[in-house]
Amino acid sequence: MVEFIEGGITTPQGFKAAGVHSGVKYRSLDLGMLYSEVPATAFKAFTSNKVKAAPVQLMINDNSPKLSAVVVNSGNANALTGRRGYEDAETMQKAVAKELGIDPKTVGVMSTGLIGRFMDMHKVQYGISRAAKELDVGRNADGLLCESIMTTDTIKKECAARVRLQDGTLVYISAISKGSGMISPHLKALHGTTLTLITTDAVLTSEFSHEFQRTLDDSMNMVSVDGDQSTNDTCIMLANGLAGGKPADKDENFIEALRMVMTKIARTIAMDGEGATKLITVEVNGAKTKDDARLVVKTVINSPLVKSAIFGSDPNYGRVMMALGNSGAEFNLEEVHLVIKGGDLEVPILDSGAPVFQEERSVEVVRMAMDNKEVILQLDLGVGSESAVGWGCDLTYDYVRINAEYST
Amino acid sequence: MVEFIEGGITTPQGFKAAGVHSGVKYRSLDLGMLYSEVPATAFKAFTSNKVKAAPVQLMINDNSPKLSAVVVNSGNANALTGRRGYEDAETMQKAVAKELGIDPKTVGVMSTGLIGRFMDMHKVQYGISRAAKELDVGRNADGLLCESIMTTDTIKKECAARVRLQDGTLVYISAISKGSGMISPHLKALHGTTLTLITTDAVLTSEFSHEFQRTLDDSMNMVSVDGDQSTNDTCIMLANGLAGGKPADKDENFIEALRMVMTKIARTIAMDGEGATKLITVEVNGAKTKDDARLVVKTVINSPLVKSAIFGSDPNYGRVMMALGNSGAEFNLEEVHLVIKGGDLEVPILDSGAPVFQEERSVEVVRMAMDNKEVILQLDLGVGSESAVGWGCDLTYDYVRINAEYST
Repeated sequence: MVEFIEGGITTPQGFKAAGVHSGVKYRSLDLGMLYSEVPATAFKAFTSNKVKAAPVQLMINDNSPKLSAVVVNSGNANALTGRRGYEDAETMQKAVAKELGIDPKTVGVMSTGLIGRFMDMHKVQYGISRAAKELDVGRNADGLLCESIMTTDTIKKECAARVRLQDGTLVYISAISKGSGMISPHLKALHGTTLTLITTDAVLTSEFSHEFQRTLDDSMNMVSVDGDQSTNDTCIMLANGLAGGKPADKDENFIEALRMVMTKIARTIAMDGEGATKLITVEVNGAKTKDDARLVVKTVINSPLVKSAIFGSDPNYGRVMMALGNSGAEFNLEEVHLVIKGGDLEVPILDSGAPVFQEERSVEVVRMAMDNKEVILQLDLGVGSESAVGWGCDLTYDYVRINAEYST
Repeated sequence: MVEFIEGGITTPQGFKAAGVHSGVKYRSLDLGMLYSEVPATAFKAFTSNKVKAAPVQLMINDNSPKLSAVVVNSGNANALTGRRGYEDAETMQKAVAKELGIDPKTVGVMSTGLIGRFMDMHKVQYGISRAAKELDVGRNADGLLCESIMTTDTIKKECAARVRLQDGTLVYISAISKGSGMISPHLKALHGTTLTLITTDAVLTSEFSHEFQRTLDDSMNMVSVDGDQSTNDTCIMLANGLAGGKPADKDENFIEALRMVMTKIARTIAMDGEGATKLITVEVNGAKTKDDARLVVKTVINSPLVKSAIFGSDPNYGRVMMALGNSGAEFNLEEVHLVIKGGDLEVPILDSGAPVFQEERSVEVVRMAMDNKEVILQLDLGVGSESAVGWGCDLTYDYVRINAEYST
């Protein structure tokens, strides 16, 4: 029903993209633009950090139901920049509008990079003017936009899927994202600096907002690289309706496809966390409430002790229980189950609250399970039927190196 | 009034100490004992982690108002060990009672080390029997007990002070502590694995419990090495009254002395955090509530991005504001002040919400301030008059190394 395909942000009909070097960064691409030939229904979600970057404030104030374009710059977050920063974000909006002949209020703005520095608007305006001229469809344009929004990312995060709706319409969904550090999104209607753009040619109405939030809550909002939520996190989905057919707001096939796309993007962000060598997936079952299940997932994936143990494949599983105990969630220790999975190995650690292994030989099996690119921690809390899944990464020497040297 | 003196856990009258090698650890001292010649009024505080180690459960169940001895082992936390672990903790208690000829319920038990392994009780009992025979006063005995409770600690944490009470009585207060990783105590009446023992020959009654908690809330509970709260944190203060005089429960000199001792211990724990090269002190003023002030301190000192920036002396101060925004505390961005201090430098960063520096030259001054053994971050939230101070440390390559290899 849902089929992942080779494709990018311009795979759905009617979208064009560009990515250029404006000069804000020394060498790499640093300004991207997305354009929809027809105004698209826009779904937006922003960081819950109380210190919000200027473009985030602008988007919240605009609250535009439809967007025709989104401009994104990397290298400077335009955060902690006061009134001047806000005006700079507006200037970006107006410059795009002028180049494309559209209403400024239909232009989305996203920024990522250093906090607390003013934008070099001369360079940004030059970049906008070039990007507008280079808007294009196809894999090359996809790649340029994707690359232009990257900061410490080491891999491109893009994903495309095709799905047949219940009314027979064939629609496409694509997503790109950036984010490697300061990642613990809690995007309210979304957070990290994660910047995420989703395009679809499906017909969607504002009714879809709640489903959009639910999808984010189970995907982007369940990723944490370092527990630090950015000032700039933004997720924008543009639905331009060019595939035709009936509104897909309640179409289960569409919802399934969007969830699959967003889950894939979320996993990729975690996998590419700053300095990461391993993806950590935490699955919590048997929780009393959904919030409890999420809380345990977040506490475990954010624990520096759990993260560094997994980096070293150190079978110090007591730390997972330490994190569970700190989460604040309700559990029944005498019913708690913990399983560590990696590769083909599935090692029961705690069975009804009691350690399964005490022998040194078995500790070695835990180490072997942990010595894989993806380590899965499965916890059953034994007090209910709610569950949650989330993704993080190991804490490594490179995370420290990257963040001890970031601004210089 | 309060005078720090060269001294240790047996400096107050009537206390004896010992530390021996029982064999739980391969080579280092791993079992310590503290004894008071007369039953002492006991003030206890334990981890708030819902997964509590066996000795913590036992101490909570006993709830003994008076203690004559405390036994501490390192190398094994006796946590996640179920009924067998609980019985092992009781066995430790009884073994000490038998050796010293006292009631088992007057024996405190503390453990620290690996989680999820059963204790080797043969070795522990041998250690208890030896320690009981070696109980002594003086700096050598102080040092042995202090050393026997260490795990990844690199320095001994001990402190002694003398204070003249308002009624003229001269009393002594001493404290020792261990704790380097899994440190984010939230000791309820105390958390990390911090284990802390305080002795005093002052007369105190149970009335002093609230002041004891307040002192912990402003000292031990404001330390965080990694935001991970242990299953084993325990703080026990023994007041044996041998200095005579009136109860010191409300004596401001005594309270001041205890606060000074505990603050010094708290700073030492932060400074000796796993892999730490720098002490980070966060001072928050102008908060609406005390809880808000504490929340901001904790969020800033726990941010891996702030911690790694300070490790690298990277003047990426936007991260402090990112952490403030995530704390959940109330603040007025337009009134927020941020100052970074280090050595003789005091650099204003944010003045009424606006960055003070934009020039590269000034960024260099921030780097110089951060390039000190103690870096102080002062934040004024601009919405009230409450304040809090807390201590943490930088996030370094060594933290990762220590915790990627801990159990092996």
